[in-house]
Amino acid sequence: MDSAVTTARIYNFSPGPAVLPLPVLEQAQRELLALPGCGASILEISHRSPAFIEILAQTKSRLTQLLGIPAGYQILFLQGGSRLLFSMIPMNLLRGRAVGAEYLLTGSWGQYACTEARREGPVHVPWDGRETNYDRLPAEDQPLAVDPAAAYLHFTSNETIQGVQFRSEPLCGEVPLVCDASSDFLSRPLDVSRYGLIYACAQKNAGPAGVTIVIVRDDLLERSQDELPGYLNFRSHAEQDSLYNTPPTFAIYLVNLVARWLLEDLGGLDQVALRNERKAALLYAELDASEGFYRGHAQPECRSRMNVTFRLPSAELESRFVAEAAAQDLGELKGHRSVGGIRASIYNAMPLEGVEALRQFMRDFRARHAG
Amino acid sequence: MDSAVTTARIYNFSPGPAVLPLPVLEQAQRELLALPGCGASILEISHRSPAFIEILAQTKSRLTQLLGIPAGYQILFLQGGSRLLFSMIPMNLLRGRAVGAEYLLTGSWGQYACTEARREGPVHVPWDGRETNYDRLPAEDQPLAVDPAAAYLHFTSNETIQGVQFRSEPLCGEVPLVCDASSDFLSRPLDVSRYGLIYACAQKNAGPAGVTIVIVRDDLLERSQDELPGYLNFRSHAEQDSLYNTPPTFAIYLVNLVARWLLEDLGGLDQVALRNERKAALLYAELDASEGFYRGHAQPECRSRMNVTFRLPSAELESRFVAEAAAQDLGELKGHRSVGGIRASIYNAMPLEGVEALRQFMRDFRARHAG
Repeated sequence: MDSAVTTARIYNFSPGPAVLPLPVLEQAQRELLALPGCGASILEISHRSPAFIEILAQTKSRLTQLLGIPAGYQILFLQGGSRLLFSMIPMNLLRGRAVGAEYLLTGSWGQYACTEARREGPVHVPWDGRETNYDRLPAEDQPLAVDPAAAYLHFTSNETIQGVQFRSEPLCGEVPLVCDASSDFLSRPLDVSRYGLIYACAQKNAGPAGVTIVIVRDDLLERSQDELPGYLNFRSHAEQDSLYNTPPTFAIYLVNLVARWLLEDLGGLDQVALRNERKAALLYAELDASEGFYRGHAQPECRSRMNVTFRLPSAELESRFVAEAAAQDLGELKGHRSVGGIRASIYNAMPLEGVEALRQFMRDFRARHAG
Repeated sequence: MDSAVTTARIYNFSPGPAVLPLPVLEQAQRELLALPGCGASILEISHRSPAFIEILAQTKSRLTQLLGIPAGYQILFLQGGSRLLFSMIPMNLLRGRAVGAEYLLTGSWGQYACTEARREGPVHVPWDGRETNYDRLPAEDQPLAVDPAAAYLHFTSNETIQGVQFRSEPLCGEVPLVCDASSDFLSRPLDVSRYGLIYACAQKNAGPAGVTIVIVRDDLLERSQDELPGYLNFRSHAEQDSLYNTPPTFAIYLVNLVARWLLEDLGGLDQVALRNERKAALLYAELDASEGFYRGHAQPECRSRMNVTFRLPSAELESRFVAEAAAQDLGELKGHRSVGGIRASIYNAMPLEGVEALRQFMRDFRARHAG
C-alpha cells in the first residue's frame, strides 16, 4: 500500500468532530514527543505544571482577545460536551429560582437542551419551529412572550442538523441570555456583554472533541448552590481556574493553537466571518441557481454559514451524490437522518478551495443528473 | 535555542498526566495529519465514522483481552474524570436503595469520593486511616463491619497521593465492589468477576487526561433511574455504546494504542505486573538501605508499586533533592503537599532505565548529604 496515498488529506465536510487547521495539526505533530523546553509531551505533563498553566492562561487570553470578552466574565474548560452542559446549566442557574427558564426550540439541539432542563425545573417555550421541521427561526424583530423574571433564556445560535443560524441575539429584555454556540463559536464576532453564559463544545470550530468552553458572567456564578455535586457546580471550576480536577489538557492545548491561528494567521473574527460568509455564499448560490435540483432545507433568511443542508430530487440521487463526492475526496457529506439529504459543514478550518471543489462537483453532478 | 536540546525527553515521574509509552506517542505522531486510509486526522473524524467505530471496538476488545473481562460487563468511555464518577456512582447505584453505601477511607481520593457520595444518600465508613495520615490499609484478613445489604462498597485500589495500594480486594461478602482504580488500572491482572464496577481515569497508566474507563456489571446498570440527567445516567452510555454524545475520540484512540502496547510489546498484564514490581522493589530497597535517610510514608506491607512516597531528614534537603534530580533530567518528583517530601510515580510507561537512574541518583544524593 502506498503510504503517500493513504496519508493524503481529503476535504472533510464532517459536522463534528471536524476539520482542523493544517498549521495547528502540523505544530501538534512536531511537538507530540516533547513540548519545547519541557522534556515531555503535552499528553504527559501535569495540569499543575508551569508549562500547562502557561498554556491555560494563553488560551484564555487569546479567547478574550478574539471575542473581546469584557471584565466580569470567567472562561471555563469543562468535559462532557454540550450534553452535560444541558444539565449543568439548569442545575446551576434554574434550581431555587422563583421563575422558570425560557427555551427556544429551533432544532434538534435546542430540543435536547430543553428535555434536560425540564428535569431540573419549570420551562416555558416561547417559540417552537417543529411545524416546519425547524427550517426557520423567530424573525429578528419578532417579540417573544418571555417572562421578564425568567431565570434565563436559552437558545442555540446554530442548529448543526437543520442548518439554521441566528443572525443576532433574540430579544428578551433583561433576562440573561444563555447560548449553546457549539457549532458557530469563533466563526464570527460576538458582543459577549449581551450574554449571561455562552458554551460550546470544541469539536466544530475550536478544537477536538473532549473540551467544552464556557464563558459565564460573574453574577450568574452566584446562583450555584453549595449542595450541587462538586464537578457539576460551575463555581468549583471558576474558583480553581478549571483545575478543580484534571482538565483535558491536550484538547485545551489544541484550542490554544486554533485561537492563535484565528488571531494571527486569519486576522481575527471580523476576517473569519467574512471568509465564512464567502464560503457559504458560494454553496447557497449553487443551490439557488439549480432550478430546484438542489433544495435548501433552511429558509433563506435563516441559512447557516456553518452547515449547508439540502435535498436532491430523490434519495437515490442523494446516495449517489455522497458516493461520487467521496470518490473525488469530498468526504462526510451525508445529511443527518432527521433532515435527510446532504449536509456540507464548512467550519472555520474548511479552506475556500474545499468549498470551491464542492461547488464544482455540485455543478457537474447536476449537469449529469438534472432533467 | 538548540531544538535537539529542547525536544529531548526526560524521565518524567509525574503523578498524572504521566509518561506514555514512546511507541504510542510515535505512532500518534506519524498518524496525526491523517489516519491511514481515512484522509483526515483522528482529531477530525466523526465518532460515528467506520474508522472510529473500529477503534472503539478494538479498544474494548483489547481491554477485554488484557483484563479477561467476562460476559455480563459493559465497558464505557466517559468524561469528567474520577471527580464526575464520584457523583455518578452514587447517583446511579445508591439513589432509591434501602441501605446506604460503604466507603473505605484510605487516602485523599477515597475521601473525595466519600464526600460526593454523602450528597446522594447514606454512607457508612467501616475503615478510616486518617489517624496515621493514611499510611496503611485494612489488613487482608481484617473483617470489615459492612452491612450485607449495602448498596455497594467503594474502595480506592491505589492512593496516588499517599502511596498505599491494596494487594487484593477487601472482603465484603456479596456486597457489590466498586473500585476507583484510576492510578493502578492495567498495571496488574484483576479478577474482574469480583467487581460490580471498576473505573479509572486514563491519565496514569492507560492514556491521556480526558477519558474515564468504566467497567460495569449488567445488573448494576438496572439500578439507574430514568429521572437522572441524560449524561449522568450510566444506561445512556451503555445503551449507545459510549456514543450517547461525542466521546473524547483522540483519548480513546490513545487508550487503544496503549492497550496494544501492553498486550503485544509487553506481553500482557502478568508481565506488566512483574515489571512494575521489579521497578518498585528497586526504589523501596534503596529506602530500606538508607539507614533512615529516606523514610517511606507507607507501611511496608501497603506500599504502592505505582507511587513511591518518602521523606528526607529536612524540608530543605527535600527541595534540594527535587532540584538536583531535575537538573539530571529526573522530573516531577515533588510530593503532594498533604504528605510532603518526594513522590516517584512509576506507572507502566516508566522504563526500568528511568527507575535505575533515579535509584542511582538517590544513592549519590545520600552519599553527599547523609550524616
